Amino acid sequence: MKNVERRMSKTSRIRVGILGATGAVGQKFVELLDGHPWFEVRELAASGRSEGKRYRDAVNWFSDVPLPDYAADLIVSSIDDEFESKILFSALPAEVADAVERKLADQGHIVVSNARSNRMAEDVPLVIPEVNSEHLGLVTRQASFSSGGFVITNPNCATVGLVCALKPLHDAFGVEAVQVTSLQALSGAGHPGVSALDALGNVIPFIDGEEEKLSTEPAKLLGSYDNGRVMPVQIAISAQCNRVPVVDGHLLCVSVKLSTRSRDAAGTAGSTGLTVKDVRNALESFETPYEIRSLPSTPETFLRVFEEAAFPQPRKHVGLGGGMPVSVGRIRAVPVLDFRLVVLVHNTVRGAAGCAIQNAELVAQTFRDTFFAGSAELFAAG
Amino acid sequence: MKNVERRMSKTSRIRVGILGATGAVGQKFVELLDGHPWFEVRELAASGRSEGKRYRDAVNWFSDVPLPDYAADLIVSSIDDEFESKILFSALPAEVADAVERKLADQGHIVVSNARSNRMAEDVPLVIPEVNSEHLGLVTRQASFSSGGFVITNPNCATVGLVCALKPLHDAFGVEAVQVTSLQALSGAGHPGVSALDALGNVIPFIDGEEEKLSTEPAKLLGSYDNGRVMPVQIAISAQCNRVPVVDGHLLCVSVKLSTRSRDAAGTAGSTGLTVKDVRNALESFETPYEIRSLPSTPETFLRVFEEAAFPQPRKHVGLGGGMPVSVGRIRAVPVLDFRLVVLVHNTVRGAAGCAIQNAELVAQTFRDTFFAGSAELFAAG
Amino acid sequence: MKNVERRMSKTSRIRVGILGATGAVGQKFVELLDGHPWFEVRELAASGRSEGKRYRDAVNWFSDVPLPDYAADLIVSSIDDEFESKILFSALPAEVADAVERKLADQGHIVVSNARSNRMAEDVPLVIPEVNSEHLGLVTRQASFSSGGFVITNPNCATVGLVCALKPLHDAFGVEAVQVTSLQALSGAGHPGVSALDALGNVIPFIDGEEEKLSTEPAKLLGSYDNGRVMPVQIAISAQCNRVPVVDGHLLCVSVKLSTRSRDAAGTAGSTGLTVKDVRNALESFETPYEIRSLPSTPETFLRVFEEAAFPQPRKHVGLGGGMPVSVGRIRAVPVLDFRLVVLVHNTVRGAAGCAIQNAELVAQTFRDTFFAGSAELFAAG
Amino acid sequence: MKNVERRMSKTSRIRVGILGATGAVGQKFVELLDGHPWFEVRELAASGRSEGKRYRDAVNWFSDVPLPDYAADLIVSSIDDEFESKILFSALPAEVADAVERKLADQGHIVVSNARSNRMAEDVPLVIPEVNSEHLGLVTRQASFSSGGFVITNPNCATVGLVCALKPLHDAFGVEAVQVTSLQALSGAGHPGVSALDALGNVIPFIDGEEEKLSTEPAKLLGSYDNGRVMPVQIAISAQCNRVPVVDGHLLCVSVKLSTRSRDAAGTAGSTGLTVKDVRNALESFETPYEIRSLPSTPETFLRVFEEAAFPQPRKHVGLGGGMPVSVGRIRAVPVLDFRLVVLVHNTVRGAAGCAIQNAELVAQTFRDTFFAGSAELFAAG
Repeated sequence: MKNVERRMSKTSRIRVGILGATGAVGQKFVELLDGHPWFEVRELAASGRSEGKRYRDAVNWFSDVPLPDYAADLIVSSIDDEFESKILFSALPAEVADAVERKLADQGHIVVSNARSNRMAEDVPLVIPEVNSEHLGLVTRQASFSSGGFVITNPNCATVGLVCALKPLHDAFGVEAVQVTSLQALSGAGHPGVSALDALGNVIPFIDGEEEKLSTEPAKLLGSYDNGRVMPVQIAISAQCNRVPVVDGHLLCVSVKLSTRSRDAAGTAGSTGLTVKDVRNALESFETPYEIRSLPSTPETFLRVFEEAAFPQPRKHVGLGGGMPVSVGRIRAVPVLDFRLVVLVHNTVRGAAGCAIQNAELVAQTFRDTFFAGSAELFAAG
Repeated sequence: MKNVERRMSKTSRIRVGILGATGAVGQKFVELLDGHPWFEVRELAASGRSEGKRYRDAVNWFSDVPLPDYAADLIVSSIDDEFESKILFSALPAEVADAVERKLADQGHIVVSNARSNRMAEDVPLVIPEVNSEHLGLVTRQASFSSGGFVITNPNCATVGLVCALKPLHDAFGVEAVQVTSLQALSGAGHPGVSALDALGNVIPFIDGEEEKLSTEPAKLLGSYDNGRVMPVQIAISAQCNRVPVVDGHLLCVSVKLSTRSRDAAGTAGSTGLTVKDVRNALESFETPYEIRSLPSTPETFLRVFEEAAFPQPRKHVGLGGGMPVSVGRIRAVPVLDFRLVVLVHNTVRGAAGCAIQNAELVAQTFRDTFFAGSAELFAAG
Repeated sequence: MKNVERRMSKTSRIRVGILGATGAVGQKFVELLDGHPWFEVRELAASGRSEGKRYRDAVNWFSDVPLPDYAADLIVSSIDDEFESKILFSALPAEVADAVERKLADQGHIVVSNARSNRMAEDVPLVIPEVNSEHLGLVTRQASFSSGGFVITNPNCATVGLVCALKPLHDAFGVEAVQVTSLQALSGAGHPGVSALDALGNVIPFIDGEEEKLSTEPAKLLGSYDNGRVMPVQIAISAQCNRVPVVDGHLLCVSVKLSTRSRDAAGTAGSTGLTVKDVRNALESFETPYEIRSLPSTPETFLRVFEEAAFPQPRKHVGLGGGMPVSVGRIRAVPVLDFRLVVLVHNTVRGAAGCAIQNAELVAQTFRDTFFAGSAELFAAG
Repeated sequence: MKNVERRMSKTSRIRVGILGATGAVGQKFVELLDGHPWFEVRELAASGRSEGKRYRDAVNWFSDVPLPDYAADLIVSSIDDEFESKILFSALPAEVADAVERKLADQGHIVVSNARSNRMAEDVPLVIPEVNSEHLGLVTRQASFSSGGFVITNPNCATVGLVCALKPLHDAFGVEAVQVTSLQALSGAGHPGVSALDALGNVIPFIDGEEEKLSTEPAKLLGSYDNGRVMPVQIAISAQCNRVPVVDGHLLCVSVKLSTRSRDAAGTAGSTGLTVKDVRNALESFETPYEIRSLPSTPETFLRVFEEAAFPQPRKHVGLGGGMPVSVGRIRAVPVLDFRLVVLVHNTVRGAAGCAIQNAELVAQTFRDTFFAGSAELFAAG
């Protein structure tokens, strides 16, 4: 199937590049873009010592999926080189991304970034397509937009899981406060990342910088977009992040305080008048916006709600639907804050490379006539 | 050293028995009572199929500490037998404990139980010696007390950790609400307990019955004792319990809302006016009550407060001080509820057998003249 | 795709049943037979307490692949019932299989068994299709064959891996002696199987009964078939089996002593005159027999030979090609015995349910005109 | 106790230094030398960036035993400095040890090294005290000996376990060939060492350089010493080393071919005429040489032989006797080579720092009158 598609669309697929292609997230981009119906990876860039090598020789490939054939013999370029691809995925570490991403946008590239560098900038959209695709409009405020370039970002991996679950609740009831304790997978730290001597049979109750991202990014993601501006919502968030010996999948234990606007006079559970059933209904009935459904990476089910007492579990459910759906379970009315739930997100797919690719698809679809007119038949097929 | 002590006190140590001696908690009793200065294990009882066997043949010993010599050749009796020992430690499953513990008290035994069966009964003390030793007075209300028998219990393993950390905060500031997410060790489920196929590289976000215990027991433990009654405190608690692939050590991610009685007008952090330093001081300055310090199992340090960003960690710190100290770290002022902290408790030592043994020591010291007059010189030495 | 296939072949697929359908191997059959082009599962049987329940209610489904829709509402029957399906897969424990399998064959069923009960019987084929499909002829010696029924078995999970690697070496050079130390996955013990408290961060250097199977089954598998008899080969085998904390994938550290018939006078490495390259060539050039290639479960690559120093690894490579290929690496000439190699087999796929299904395919193809004439178009399509 | 001893011997304990004190093995030296009756650590040296810092600030202490008080405030010196201590423990990486150890010996220091650099040098003893203490005589051949300095080494961590088990068998029966497959713990790779993403739920079937050490060092260790020379024994060894997710403890699956000198005419098991009982007797009756028993680090039991089917296990038995005894189990007569057994060694204690400290004790006792006359009363007490 993939081979057929690839051949069919060879002439018209959009050429893309990957910056930071040898790192953990970069490898995930390489893996997920294998056989992508719209995008064709033509450029791989990495830090100096990989430059000029074949990708297969430059990378310490550690995924359990074999290195895709298409990438094996591509020659790795420097991130300081000029790129031909209109779309560049950035899997760069923040300290490198800081200096490079805006510059590439100025050169006319669309930088679809997983780095944290520009996430909170006022003119940069921070997007999960099912949640806030309208924020894409921010890019028109970027100085580089006139030359056809801009930066768009996706959130921190744990933030993605949290916000996917909060969005339906915020739409239905309003969320006032969030308390989240995360149990995060090893792959979130990259490779080599955490030492096995620290991880095995242990929990590390701290992840540097993570709690801050988890506390600040949701307000922007859930904010309203109006005329080139995003108004963040007012939500108090307390986060504590733990590293646990799990390969893939961040599990979030979330408590939410719902706002009063939906409370009735006789409010029972959590004094909101809402029941577990109300909360579950809000999650299950949330619909992926129409224009997002046609993106190749959009999963059929956005949120999978479990009723089993001990689900979701990282090792068992992280791969459902290819890693793009977010799983929710253990919805309960509780006496502190209003409701508790457990959320599971595939941190390197939905929480990183998968979300970025979906963002790129959103960009391609939105700017199909502007920047990608040569690939028109792709979108018809898609 | 141990050998010397054992020899010295041979004639006078208090004889004790262990009920449920072949199970996981029972084995921990056997291990921790090896060479105990006050107690000498003389009776081991277990379910029917072990009866009449030598302990070494009846038990599937799985600790990493070798089976103590003293226990190896003891013949296992039935829990339906009559016992000679005044003090009986109960490591029975709740469904067995239900029927047996009160009956044994009626026969004049002091039952020091780790089972949940009688914990919440109005006339049964639920005790952590450093926290609420005065609750021991409840035993005089038990009908069996007139015949010299009674039941005393220790809390659920996760509750012990939580309450040890809450006690100093409640004394200093008052605690109004608690939100706790636990990451609990495999040994808490006994042996064989959790299947390796479920545990390895995974998190199970549910432990049957655990959240209820963690939500209800603290109110009794922190309650005030007056004239044969315990008045529970009013604390709202929301708990979510996860099983993680760790051998020993429950890690608790705790948020506390402090009561207003210590808030000043200009209250800053968490609007309580309290700082992280205030909270740390309360924890570090908490003193083990004088009469508890002389108990052999009382640790030198009740709470160990870490300042390192990523401590405490189960595998690295669970064994500190032999497992009786409770570790605390990551104290932070947060925008939801007032403060966060991370608590680590050794679930099978401080959280189970160790706490029960310390309770028995409290009983022995309290009733030294009544029930244990023959062992007077022990306490002098102690 | 699967749905299409299923619909197309609905009228003609061969109906099959699964005995022991709720156990670990039974679940793997249910999973692997989802959408199978030739077989349609119509009957699920299990022990008494599951009888009469819907499969979804009877099973504790623990795979990370969701329970297939086709099976969810099938009513579980008793293994003592009568069955309509010609082919019955047996995932029964040996003690049950002992009594049942021959009886079902007498009733005219083809029993494709993963149980060890009949593996070594003189009239029962023990088959890995790529290795010894001609052994199928043994079934004509079974008394039940006249009534259209017989038993065919696949080897122990570790044996499968070992023999797949030995077969090309035995064909090319002759194997005289084998020394194998296995590092076996948890899933080999079923569910719940090994206690997490025993497995985590540990190795258990013993698996009950495993070393005997690994020492005896290869001689039959590599034996020559002639006129209704299998002559076992003479190979001395020493096995030691360890359980390691890995979910899926048995890793075998194998040493082989090659026979003299290929040694030349000046024999260098291991005094066989053979080089690592010779051994690798033998493995890489081994061809799946022509008539086996068309079976739906036959993998494109039978043996995958790695040259990377630290490959194959269970977690990274066990799933290659869906779990049916066997991986080999670290081929070395050594001073004790002649050559060393490392073999990785997916123990529940190639080593159990997958091998049994492939055996059933071999049976269906072989007896297409005799027993499965009604499904003729399947094989054409296949 | 420790405090008492320390005070008693304060004036006379031998001052020692540790080179490479901040690394994994260096930390183990710091830990094991806490309260040592003969040695007092006075100097800690490490690579450039630690120089001048207090040890507590320079080290990333990762042991589960707290950093000893005695070391916390010692100032870390450079390994290029001059040292006052007569005995210097070397926990240096080989590439640093290469250049430094002989030079320090020339300056009159006794370098007790865990590095591999000088292990196989003809004039350097490679010693496990219970096995070949007489090899210490080699030091007199070192050019530096005239100035009072020399180098003594201990073997690779896996080699130590292997040779401790082989020694009694070689003495009793002669060993002709050895086949060993190791399952090695993470701590053998130091810290950070292996990435958790590679180790969790996985086996890595290769450890760089390990198989060579395991294949070559035993011949020297078991060799005979005569007049300043060691004659290596002729033993063919084939080794394959795997990394498994275990914290401490290398498990070795060993096969041995015994030499003919003990075979009788009617030889049964393995055609040696020897039984499992003979082999077990040889292991159990092996006696620690008289002069080694008084060394403080010599364990009461050199080899602990298990009869339980599934023992020894790393997590459960690695810490027995403080980590200095070596455990053996699963002794079996097998059809390839003669006997199989499983060996467990604590890789960082008996296999590294503990063995080096015991070597230093051997040196101190041997040269008590030459180099350590000022500490005479130590040895009397010891």
